[in-house]
Amino acid sequence: MQEETPNIDRIFHALGDPTRRAMVEKLSEGPLSVSRLAAPFGITLAAVVQHVQVLEGCGLVHTEKLGRVRTCRLEPACLERVAQWIADRRSLWERRLDRLAEELAEADEEAGETPEPEWLG
Amino acid sequence: MQEETPNIDRIFHALGDPTRRAMVEKLSEGPLSVSRLAAPFGITLAAVVQHVQVLEGCGLVHTEKLGRVRTCRLEPACLERVAQWIADRRSLWERRLDRLAEELAEADEEAGETPEPEWLG
Repeated sequence: MQEETPNIDRIFHALGDPTRRAMVEKLSEGPLSVSRLAAPFGITLAAVVQHVQVLEGCGLVHTEKLGRVRTCRLEPACLERVAQWIADRRSLWERRLDRLAEELAEADEEAGETPEPEWLG
Repeated sequence: MQEETPNIDRIFHALGDPTRRAMVEKLSEGPLSVSRLAAPFGITLAAVVQHVQVLEGCGLVHTEKLGRVRTCRLEPACLERVAQWIADRRSLWERRLDRLAEELAEADEEAGETPEPEWLG
């Protein structure tokens, strides 16, 4: 039942925090330096760095240091894994609803009010 | 930036645990009593109840007690919210890639190696 590599736990955990989701939101418009990413949040740079480390730890964000600037960019493949997990659940769910609908239709037929008349040619 | 109601935090948190994800997986095939839901996990019923409470607290699962049996069913609308959140990020991301592609094409034109010859009719 659990064939996923372990980091989907960490992806969900990372996305459970509103500041980290807001960071993912900003990065989905393009890469940013840590300080530009931090600007709108009104929290200490240390707190921002911690959030970035969580995002990097689960693979949602990749960071790279060029000179004195560390740039963050989103790894969309990681969000796709979560989307795929949900899509798989949805398809199970929909198959179940289809089966239910079939069963109801069959039950309807069996309970059938008046049987179809036989036409003699 | 954060217009979501607060329980998306709790949905992501709930899905960050592999046992709870496995429970959601089982429930996506149809409703189950707590004891049947618990069966494959080899953990105490108390631990299962705690997980179910987390799933119920964020809205992913609805439970109902009939006589002595508590039945759990998935609330797919809750998974849809997570799917929508990801889809919104993806669309920002794709728009950004489109813009990048346009900019590259324009830069190509401006740097244009040899200009298109003019055909005189």
